[in-house]
Amino acid sequence: MRVAVLGCGNVGGAFVSLLLEDADGIAARSGVRLALAGVAVGDPSRDRPGVPAGLLTGDAKALVEDPAVDVVVELIGGLEPAGSLVRAALSAGRPVVTANKELLAAEGAELSALAAGAGVDLLYEAAVAGAIPILRPLRQSLAGERVRRVMGIVNGTTNFILSRMSESGLGYAEALAEAQDLGYAERDPTADVEGHDAAAKAAILASLAFRCDVRAEQVPREGIAGVSPVDIAFAAQLGYVVKLLAVAERIGDGAQAGAGGEISVRVHPAMLPDSHPLAAVRGAFNAVFVEGEGAGELMLYGRGAGGAPTASAVLGDVVDAAHHLRSGAAGLAVPRAEFAMHPADDLRCAWYLNIDVLDRPGVLAAVATVFGEQRVSIRSMEQLGMGDEARLVFLTHVARQGDVMATLEDLRRLDVVEHVGGVLRVLGDEEDG
Amino acid sequence: MRVAVLGCGNVGGAFVSLLLEDADGIAARSGVRLALAGVAVGDPSRDRPGVPAGLLTGDAKALVEDPAVDVVVELIGGLEPAGSLVRAALSAGRPVVTANKELLAAEGAELSALAAGAGVDLLYEAAVAGAIPILRPLRQSLAGERVRRVMGIVNGTTNFILSRMSESGLGYAEALAEAQDLGYAERDPTADVEGHDAAAKAAILASLAFRCDVRAEQVPREGIAGVSPVDIAFAAQLGYVVKLLAVAERIGDGAQAGAGGEISVRVHPAMLPDSHPLAAVRGAFNAVFVEGEGAGELMLYGRGAGGAPTASAVLGDVVDAAHHLRSGAAGLAVPRAEFAMHPADDLRCAWYLNIDVLDRPGVLAAVATVFGEQRVSIRSMEQLGMGDEARLVFLTHVARQGDVMATLEDLRRLDVVEHVGGVLRVLGDEEDG
Repeated sequence: MRVAVLGCGNVGGAFVSLLLEDADGIAARSGVRLALAGVAVGDPSRDRPGVPAGLLTGDAKALVEDPAVDVVVELIGGLEPAGSLVRAALSAGRPVVTANKELLAAEGAELSALAAGAGVDLLYEAAVAGAIPILRPLRQSLAGERVRRVMGIVNGTTNFILSRMSESGLGYAEALAEAQDLGYAERDPTADVEGHDAAAKAAILASLAFRCDVRAEQVPREGIAGVSPVDIAFAAQLGYVVKLLAVAERIGDGAQAGAGGEISVRVHPAMLPDSHPLAAVRGAFNAVFVEGEGAGELMLYGRGAGGAPTASAVLGDVVDAAHHLRSGAAGLAVPRAEFAMHPADDLRCAWYLNIDVLDRPGVLAAVATVFGEQRVSIRSMEQLGMGDEARLVFLTHVARQGDVMATLEDLRRLDVVEHVGGVLRVLGDEEDG
Repeated sequence: MRVAVLGCGNVGGAFVSLLLEDADGIAARSGVRLALAGVAVGDPSRDRPGVPAGLLTGDAKALVEDPAVDVVVELIGGLEPAGSLVRAALSAGRPVVTANKELLAAEGAELSALAAGAGVDLLYEAAVAGAIPILRPLRQSLAGERVRRVMGIVNGTTNFILSRMSESGLGYAEALAEAQDLGYAERDPTADVEGHDAAAKAAILASLAFRCDVRAEQVPREGIAGVSPVDIAFAAQLGYVVKLLAVAERIGDGAQAGAGGEISVRVHPAMLPDSHPLAAVRGAFNAVFVEGEGAGELMLYGRGAGGAPTASAVLGDVVDAAHHLRSGAAGLAVPRAEFAMHPADDLRCAWYLNIDVLDRPGVLAAVATVFGEQRVSIRSMEQLGMGDEARLVFLTHVARQGDVMATLEDLRRLDVVEHVGGVLRVLGDEEDG
């Protein structure tokens, strides 16, 4: 099987090395002998240690359309030229393996339709959570299962930052700086810390779990820059950890037969109980937690990024595509479902709210009145500090998001409220949902 | 697609209900419409609520060979008659889905060869760790990956017992009684607590991970009856938890190309550091931890037993088999590798040893001398209690199992040693392996 690789960066380089150095081992273990047909790069004249110069080409389009190529592996990333090359490969009847989350989160449905029409595979295990098997469990092992919710820690950078804040009491800026020093965060960390990366993965997870078409731009997101050490310390005291979650869930029972019903897809930090399996996912690790009606609770955990882990996931897909090519079976279309996006204001969960107040008699009564007016029921309250430092920390019962937002709006108007600090959803408790 | 179900117990009943009650939903989600061709049971005259009497038959053989049947689902369990029926189905060219760990752990290689020869699927996601996707991640997502080690908590009964001992300080007998009261343990708990069930699953995991043929009878096992509350409490103090593990690992680098080399497959309780992902797997949950050379550390977590979760895994396999039937592709043979079984005495890991001694001067010197003579290096030692209750607790550095066993042998001969108590392997530390 001749494999064309597009892109030779971190993941591409690792994948090319794997094929060059361990072709015999791969053949022995998988039953498929993989040979490199070529590696398309921006500048083929640049020396790339370990990659024979004869394999490098600057003409990705020609490589993709070369009749001698069996499988195309796209590891360039971004929308273009990756999208055009993937479309060209699929149109030419070649299976495509990609790790390109941006492309899938923007055009996944169109590309899947193109692949199905051509009767070839479009596989992208590496696009979400690196080496963690997600695509096959959701597509195959849970085929037929009614998935209720998927919650993922799918961004290693933010999980590293939150873990450091939690373990060492660092502030956000310090933890981010440490992540940058260690190479876990980019110099411009926007894509990670503001949840763009997680939103693309949430769109892909939702599309897989509910067999529908969700795009990154439809995914509301909140980043982690507003999470303070105080919130993390208080969460710990209450038995919770703070994690940035990508959430995709079915709302109500309308969607039983796959048509109709609503889903909610979103990215935000949340408090999870210490006993929740996702709470133990530390540092740069990723995990995806799935709740199904028959299967119950599942979690898939592992390395979410890095050259070798991601290249391993790409290899699994390439072997699968090669098996399919050999047997003549691929591109099996699964029926697509249509879901409406559930309005964010109607979402229901418990909340953590941290409010700076003036320390004077009657403050709690004034604040509690606002909660009551908005039908937000308080589960527990604690006052921290005194005088200028007085702060009320609330946990609510499950409440409508719109009502909580209205509560915060009204609280900000109160004279006795100086500042609304941390606002975090609380998920994973038994009462939840 | 017409599905024949053999057996209508806990899992069979749940699977039959699923097909009868949610055929439309399954069709909408999976693209495959499944109809029950029949349900073979021991006594078809017995009333089974929810199952139309016309579907019940006492003649499993005839059902399996009925030309109108597309997929056979074997949920009887045990070696016979399940084995004969599975062989009959495969020989007749019908794909088989089974949850039968005993059968697979005894005859998996022969059945796989039979399926490959007939060009049909033999799928058994439900045989190991219930609803947790294991088969596809190991077979497909990690195709080509060089797996180094698989460690699983694959028996919910023993994990429940150990969790209760750890959380509430119960003794083994009390925790077992509680598990029996709650229905987590059988009246005769032998298969669970002595590791027979875990050994069958270890054999299947090893066969999947290393694409070889391991049988349950080849798997050495130690149960949990000897684990005492003292050991669990001491483990907790040192930052460890005690878990019953099914372990399958490649020894050395000999097996790179899939031929030759050694593996070790075994079941035993072990201490894992609190920070290890498997340490957070509590109660009746299961998890499988995989270490691969490219993929790094992966963990798959979920419900290991129960009617609905297991039926969900069976459903995923049936949908897969149906897709394959429709596309005409199945039974792709993966090359098999040959491994020798690594001698248990040569295994290397750190150990926890708990030794009752007489409290008199020179005891530690006498004991330490024995360790030294057997080349077992001590990492830490602590004396607990005094007088008649004196006890020495050791953690060793990584040591050869044969040397540790010889040490224990020699210690038992010392006058000052009253009793060798807990003996536990310590896995999952950085020094490990």
